[in-house]
Amino acid sequence: MPKISSRGIEMPASPIRKLAPLSDSAKARGLKVYHLNIGQPDLPTPEVALEAIRNIDRKVLEYSPSDGYRSYREKLVGYYAKYNINIAADDILITAGGSEAILYAFLACLNPGDEIIVPEPAYANYMAFAISTGAVIKSVASSIEDGFALPPIEKIEALITKRTKGILICNPNNPTGYLYSRSEMNKIRDIVKKYDLFLFSDEVYREFIYTGSPYISAFHLVGIEENVVLVDSVSKRYSECGIRIGALITKNKELRNAVMKLCQARLSPPLIGQIVAEASLDAGDEYMLEVYDEYVERRKFLIDSLNRIPGVYSPIPMGAFYTIARLPVDDADKFCEWCLSDFEYEGQTIFMAPASGFYTTPGLGKDEVRIAYVLKKEDLHKAMVVLEKALEAYNKVSSLRSE
Amino acid sequence: MPKISSRGIEMPASPIRKLAPLSDSAKARGLKVYHLNIGQPDLPTPEVALEAIRNIDRKVLEYSPSDGYRSYREKLVGYYAKYNINIAADDILITAGGSEAILYAFLACLNPGDEIIVPEPAYANYMAFAISTGAVIKSVASSIEDGFALPPIEKIEALITKRTKGILICNPNNPTGYLYSRSEMNKIRDIVKKYDLFLFSDEVYREFIYTGSPYISAFHLVGIEENVVLVDSVSKRYSECGIRIGALITKNKELRNAVMKLCQARLSPPLIGQIVAEASLDAGDEYMLEVYDEYVERRKFLIDSLNRIPGVYSPIPMGAFYTIARLPVDDADKFCEWCLSDFEYEGQTIFMAPASGFYTTPGLGKDEVRIAYVLKKEDLHKAMVVLEKALEAYNKVSSLRSE
Repeated sequence: MPKISSRGIEMPASPIRKLAPLSDSAKARGLKVYHLNIGQPDLPTPEVALEAIRNIDRKVLEYSPSDGYRSYREKLVGYYAKYNINIAADDILITAGGSEAILYAFLACLNPGDEIIVPEPAYANYMAFAISTGAVIKSVASSIEDGFALPPIEKIEALITKRTKGILICNPNNPTGYLYSRSEMNKIRDIVKKYDLFLFSDEVYREFIYTGSPYISAFHLVGIEENVVLVDSVSKRYSECGIRIGALITKNKELRNAVMKLCQARLSPPLIGQIVAEASLDAGDEYMLEVYDEYVERRKFLIDSLNRIPGVYSPIPMGAFYTIARLPVDDADKFCEWCLSDFEYEGQTIFMAPASGFYTTPGLGKDEVRIAYVLKKEDLHKAMVVLEKALEAYNKVSSLRSE
Repeated sequence: MPKISSRGIEMPASPIRKLAPLSDSAKARGLKVYHLNIGQPDLPTPEVALEAIRNIDRKVLEYSPSDGYRSYREKLVGYYAKYNINIAADDILITAGGSEAILYAFLACLNPGDEIIVPEPAYANYMAFAISTGAVIKSVASSIEDGFALPPIEKIEALITKRTKGILICNPNNPTGYLYSRSEMNKIRDIVKKYDLFLFSDEVYREFIYTGSPYISAFHLVGIEENVVLVDSVSKRYSECGIRIGALITKNKELRNAVMKLCQARLSPPLIGQIVAEASLDAGDEYMLEVYDEYVERRKFLIDSLNRIPGVYSPIPMGAFYTIARLPVDDADKFCEWCLSDFEYEGQTIFMAPASGFYTTPGLGKDEVRIAYVLKKEDLHKAMVVLEKALEAYNKVSSLRSE
């Protein structure tokens, strides 16, 4: 049997998905499983988007242009302009979700052995893709005590070597919910400019900011316009994760041409997804407001509930719809597994993402989990009851074990 | 401005898509452009598939499992069984088109510097992905004189080094239309077994075989079951290239696990595409027969027409819906460009894929083009008239130039 590749072995399994088989088994045993592990909102996709699908009257579901339909890209220009992001339709390449955008960005920007600096915890799947392309991740830890603020810029600068090619941020942040301030973003800009780095910026949660603080896009930073690689996705914004439509946006023509070669190699992004995404742009302010208000409620409810459970702590996330919470357990990986395989409370259990998978520094995040607040309040309530009962039971079992 | 990666520079542009801007300009000038460059059938998608879209009554377009819906994978097991390919649902990972399947196969099987042997001409986009993952392509040329049969196996064996990890084939072949015989497939099997290589086999055109010869799948070869990585796609079979649904199929558990990590990193394949693809499996024999008969007609018409044009030669393709034709021109790249930028006949022109892009050996395929017979006969007829007129005009201009 031929050997698989080193990266095939080294790539971490997704902390968000790797316990899915245990969850499937729990469901097969008849349990209700609350999915706190994945950013899959239960909110409805905009009606105008669903209507667009029902009205498709094509006879042939054909390839689209490799960079996506021009009509959609032109409409996106107007969308970004509302956020004071000034780009042209040709700066946008439509991708199969934000995932394809980040993979192609890494392939086009990084040579094997090149380094990128990533504040951690960071979105696990992006790190997996970085490893798959041969890039080396240099992580700098943010901490739950500081609410996951940007670590001191000196710590970031200290990591820079000849092989450093870029900085990867997610803002508002998945998994922490942190929102970088203007001052933090300016510090990032200065470093990017000083060392002429790429700034990979995932900003898919810009609609979900719950404080009065401004959203500072990487494209708002003056003087590094050709260094910025913006990664975007409509998945969360319109609750349509399944259509797999994202975008890679760059004003760097050389980079655009290289990414375009990758886009052409895979021929085209999903056709129907583009139709849905384009229609979603007409969803209107009421849709977004309703969604926003719902998340405001859920966030408040979740964070309050978490902090009321003995020994649990969660900072207040400023954006996105995740939080990293600290649990009173020795090993959150084991605890998350145990919840799915050995625990139930009134026929229910919970599926959380162990936070260790969002760190590359071994040992960090051992007592942390990522929780997505994408379920309705009644379900979040039940999930929090289950979590409290699970922690009680788990620690009882643990203390018995250690006696 | 930061430098892009070496692979970003080295990756070839798709010969199928790179002239698209010239084609767009020609259309903007009011010309009718016949697309012979791309395998985008004009035949209708099955009605049952279109109906499935119109009947989607979901409220949320959510993520699907990373390896695709089980119901779809189970139904595929029955589909493959009809071709005597015996696999289980868990051997199948659903991907965003065949392209994602091949990219993930290379990432999971090959280390940078590892070599794969590829009979050329070969599907250009696969070579681009190989380069993007750091793999080294060792090509062995087949020739138009032999109808693009498998080159002598000794030539393949002579290329094997310590770094050789696999052989990549496409059967029936894109771009040549060649169908490997049982004897050729057995020779490939022997080499794969002897050196314990991966056999990457793209078999997306199995429905399109126009001779009495049998279709020999890589999975029919005894003794190399865990070496085979089958790449598939529903794009061509059901004329639904835009839905981006393919599959990577392997009985090698270690490889499956590695690919699954990549699948989880990108979360899920397109949701709506899977609904369409699953419904398409019910299209019935009449649909496939009608499609088949149409291609038989088109193939006969195209090859007859090509060989009637002075100086043009095309072997008779046995499968798929492409042929590589030799044209009486010095440089097919230039000629294809010229057709789009400088030529028209009665308000029409043609878009062909220069064959040089399907070879990695410099200088090969210089007077060849790939032509897809995916247009209806009337359009193929007009395109062939345009080709004949274009060749006359081009060679007149060339001879004037050289006087």
